[in-house]
Order: sequence, then structure tokens, then C-alpha cells
Amino acid sequence: MQLISLVGIMETTKVTFFDLIREGLAEVEMRMRSCPDGHHPKLAHAINHLLSSGGKRIRPAVTLLTGGMLQADHDRLVTLAAAIEMLHTATLVHDDLIDKSIMRRGFPTLNAKWTTGATVLTGDYLFARAADLATQVESMELVSRFSNSLMTIVNGEITQLFRTPSDTPREDYFRRIYAKTAALFEMAAEGPAMLSGTDERQIEAMRIYGNNVGSAFQIVDDVLDFVGNPEQVGKPTASDLRQGLITLPTLCYLEANSQDKDIAALMNNGHIAGRRIERLIESISSSGAIEKALQEARGYVDNAVSQLAGFPSSVEREALADLAEYVVQRTV
Amino acid sequence: MQLISLVGIMETTKVTFFDLIREGLAEVEMRMRSCPDGHHPKLAHAINHLLSSGGKRIRPAVTLLTGGMLQADHDRLVTLAAAIEMLHTATLVHDDLIDKSIMRRGFPTLNAKWTTGATVLTGDYLFARAADLATQVESMELVSRFSNSLMTIVNGEITQLFRTPSDTPREDYFRRIYAKTAALFEMAAEGPAMLSGTDERQIEAMRIYGNNVGSAFQIVDDVLDFVGNPEQVGKPTASDLRQGLITLPTLCYLEANSQDKDIAALMNNGHIAGRRIERLIESISSSGAIEKALQEARGYVDNAVSQLAGFPSSVEREALADLAEYVVQRTV
Repeated sequence: MQLISLVGIMETTKVTFFDLIREGLAEVEMRMRSCPDGHHPKLAHAINHLLSSGGKRIRPAVTLLTGGMLQADHDRLVTLAAAIEMLHTATLVHDDLIDKSIMRRGFPTLNAKWTTGATVLTGDYLFARAADLATQVESMELVSRFSNSLMTIVNGEITQLFRTPSDTPREDYFRRIYAKTAALFEMAAEGPAMLSGTDERQIEAMRIYGNNVGSAFQIVDDVLDFVGNPEQVGKPTASDLRQGLITLPTLCYLEANSQDKDIAALMNNGHIAGRRIERLIESISSSGAIEKALQEARGYVDNAVSQLAGFPSSVEREALADLAEYVVQRTV
Repeated sequence: MQLISLVGIMETTKVTFFDLIREGLAEVEMRMRSCPDGHHPKLAHAINHLLSSGGKRIRPAVTLLTGGMLQADHDRLVTLAAAIEMLHTATLVHDDLIDKSIMRRGFPTLNAKWTTGATVLTGDYLFARAADLATQVESMELVSRFSNSLMTIVNGEITQLFRTPSDTPREDYFRRIYAKTAALFEMAAEGPAMLSGTDERQIEAMRIYGNNVGSAFQIVDDVLDFVGNPEQVGKPTASDLRQGLITLPTLCYLEANSQDKDIAALMNNGHIAGRRIERLIESISSSGAIEKALQEARGYVDNAVSQLAGFPSSVEREALADLAEYVVQRTV
């Protein structure tokens, strides 16, 4: 049982919410690594490689803690958490292929080692396996929610791929991070609430919690793209902006500095290069835009934590609040 | 409503079993083309392109006829048929990308027009949409069957991709055509039987029917790869063999001519080229191997038809027998 990534996270960030679900997360790992009999050994090999290559298991943590708080059936929770993390892993495999990324979290990506064909098919297999795990939770409502989330995620990626310069960059950004991240966090929190059989009001509160934690998580990812350690992040500084992708730090900079010629050129042309892009990255990184974006992330976290007030006090409820805090405090 | 492909098939092959389900198939087309609100217009465009580019709709025909024979709920049948054809379409999108095919049935493939990224994501979206349609059938058992079929299909493609010279080419071939084609035909026939609420014996009979029709369908595809009109088939003659892929005509030739040096070289090295491959293609095409492969397909069809004997006489039962016959008589 390899839990290197979890141990790494715990040691470096001193987060304690993982302690409560250490065993549950180990069960999730095991469920994800179990490959149906008779399937090609290369698949088990690829799944092991992908699952051993870092990853915070933050979505499974949300699922296990929410389900624990609401006393949902443990085995179904483990299966749901495995399904959600598997779906997340599948989308990363195809994302890395499309972006031609060769490293993720310090490990070579699958597409760096395998052909396009093998990478596409492995991603497909992970989608199928995620759907298979989701059906094993045996809730029609949840399976339906699951396939809808997948459509939302893929539609978001297609929208990003075919993007054109836009007059509504803020709306576009929040639509994109919903599809990219918040939708799956939403399911990670709403799903176990649905399974627990609690009332609609509590299910809705957990949906909002997941949505807000997910939004904050993605904003922090986008901030780390500007200010994180490129080695730890595994990508060059401002890799999104270099590809013409507008994230919240850039948006905040734009809103405060609409006269800046570099940002105006970026907004008009869809992307800029050479000295201009380096100058713009420097301007954004040293401006108040980073702080402003983090403040927005903090607002999402506060909103997430406030949703927990309606639940009886418990160690899991505290851990869910800690998890939300961790999301804005992390540096990797 | 574009039904060009169906009309084409009916005109050229004089098959009548489609008449019985003409309206149902039109509903299936509509269900497949309906794209959820708010999704990127390029997706609807791609789906329309894919669905208008030929395709026999033979899997939906099996589903509608079986469900009609067993009086399953019509609306759920249409949804299931749409889910199955959508899953089939999704696998073709990724297959064509992996094989770098630029034409399918006389129309340009998606990957011939779009980037790898857009093609991968469109395939992913079709998988998600297929899963979404499958959940709308509202049968947990069926959704579980559906995700299992997808795993089987993708595992088969991965096994094909990573293939090495084998001592058991016949076993490998039949395992491959099960994953590639028979598994989905199996679900197309078993699924509606499950929905109808009939007994286990009849469900099993229809599973065997689907399995046998699917096996025959793939064998005929593999025969047409040797003897079909390359323009109609949309690929050069013996395209599989040129890539080192052993199909039933080659197997039958091997079994009767194990002394042939070209086939021995193919079996040892995984593939041969130049004058040797042309000579082998000529040898196989002019040998009794084609007839032998067709006889095997005929055996599957007879087995499929015999499964229908346990059902009361009906127009749908006759049509299912006709459909099985059509599968070995088609020339495209």
C-alpha cells in the first residue's frame, strides 16, 4: 500500500484532517488499484503509475469526511470516493495528452512514456472504471449525477479549447473553474450526503460547501501558477497565461490596470509573446492582483465553512472546516 | 431528420426488417442528436457530423426489435438504443484517431478535420453522453452492464494495441472480436430483454442471440476487408493484415497452409511488408479461406436464429431472424 503522497502532504503542511480518515483513504487507494480479472496487465501498471504519482486525495477526503459526519454506509463511501478520484485521474490523463505536458507533480506523465493511442485508451479505461465504481455505489440518483458531472467537465474543456477573445472574461473564468474543478468537489460533498439519507436542506448545504471549496482550490491553483515554486508546481511560471488562458490573478490585474498596454493586447489578440508576456507576468506577480485573487479564494472558504454551521458538532465537521482552510493555505 | 444512411442501406440491400422500426429509429436519431442546453455548439456540430456520416444503426435495430418482441416500454427502449449507438460512436471517434484513419464510410473522420485534443475531448463527451443516456433508462442493473461493456471494449483495444506474436491466434481473435463487437451486440439484445421483465431463460437466449449476431457481423467485416470494394469499405484491401492484425480469413488460411513461408514469417515476426505482404494478401483472397471464414459466420447466424425458437411467433421475431441473415449477406 503506497501512501507516499498523503504522507508527504501531511509532513509538509501539518494538516491533521487526514488523520481522521487515514484508514478510509487506504481503502480508497486499494479500491482504485484493484483491476478486474482478465484485463491487460499494462492497465494495472498504468493505474499504479498514475496513482503513485502524487495527488492530494483531497476529493476522497471530502467524501469520507462528509459521509462520516452524516453516518453514511462506510463501504459505499469508499466506493464513491474511489469513483470520484478515478474520474479525476482519467481527466488528467487526457488533459496532459492534450496539453502535451511531460511532467505532473515531478513524475513523468503517461503521454511522455506512451504513444497517443495507448494514452487515449488508458484514459478511456479509467473513465469506464470510474463509471463502474459509481454503479457499485448502487444509487441511480448518484450515477445520474456522476454522468452529468462528466459531461460538464468535458464540455468545460471543449469550451476552453475553442475559446475566442471574450467581453466577459470574469464570467468565463468562473464558468470554467466550475466545470474544471468545482463540479467534481460539489459531487464529492453532495454525493455522500445523498447516500446518508439526510434531508434536502443538508444535501444542499454540502453541495454549496463542495462548490465553494472547489472554487477556492482552483483559484489557489491559479495563484500558485504565478507565485508557486515551478519545481513543486511542475510547470513554468504563469504557464496558463503563456498559452493565452486568463485566470483570476490576470483578471484582477486587468480590472485594476485596464490601461496597461500589454494586458490590453492580450485581451484583444487572445495571446501575446516575447518580451511583452514576460513583462506582463512580472507586472501581475508583483501587483496586488495575487493578494486580491487570494482574498476571493478566502471568501469562498468562509462561505464553505459557514455551510457547516447547520450540522451538529463532530470531529468530522471540524475536519471539513480544516480542509477548507488548508485549501487556501497550501503552497503546493 | 437525416436518415440518409438507413435509406441507403434499405435501397441497396432490400432489407425489410428496418421497415418495422422506421419510426423508432427516427426517435433514436433524435435522442442522439439532442444536446443538453448550454453545451458548446461545436459539440452539437460534431455529433451531427458523426451521426450523418453513414452507420447502419444495426445495434439500435436489435434493441428496438427485441424490446418490441418482448413488449418493453417504448421510451426506455429508444433511450437504451441511443445510449448503445452513442457508445459505439464514441469508440469509433477514438479508434479513428488512434489508427490515424482519415475516412470512414466515405466521409472524413473527425480527426482528419480537428486537432488531437478536440477529437479526444469529443470522444470523451460522447462517452459521457452515452453514460447519461444509459442512466436515463433508470435500471441500475443495466447501467452496471453498460459500464462493464465499456471496460471490456477498451480493454480489448488496449490488448490489440500491445499485442505480441502469439501461439494461440484463434483464441486471441475470438477474444478480440468479442470485446470489439460482440459485447455491445450482446447488450443491445440482452438489455431490452432485461427491461421487459421477462424470465432469465429468455434474457439468456437474447444474450446468446446478440453475441452470435455480433460475432458474425465482425467476421463479415473482416472478410469484407479482403474482398469488399475498397471504396465502399473506405479502407485499402487487407488493411488489418498490412498492420499485422490477424483476422479470421488469415487464420483459416494459416490453418490450411501452415507451410506457406509468407504466413510463417508473419506469425513469427508480427508483420511482413513489401512484395511478401502483397503475395500473402493475394494468396488468402484467392484461397478457400474466405469461404471458410464466411461459413463460420454462417454458423454464428444459424446459432443466433435458433435462439429465437423459444419465443412466440411475431413480426419482430421474424425481423430479428432477417437481421441475422442480413449480417452475413451484406456487401458493405
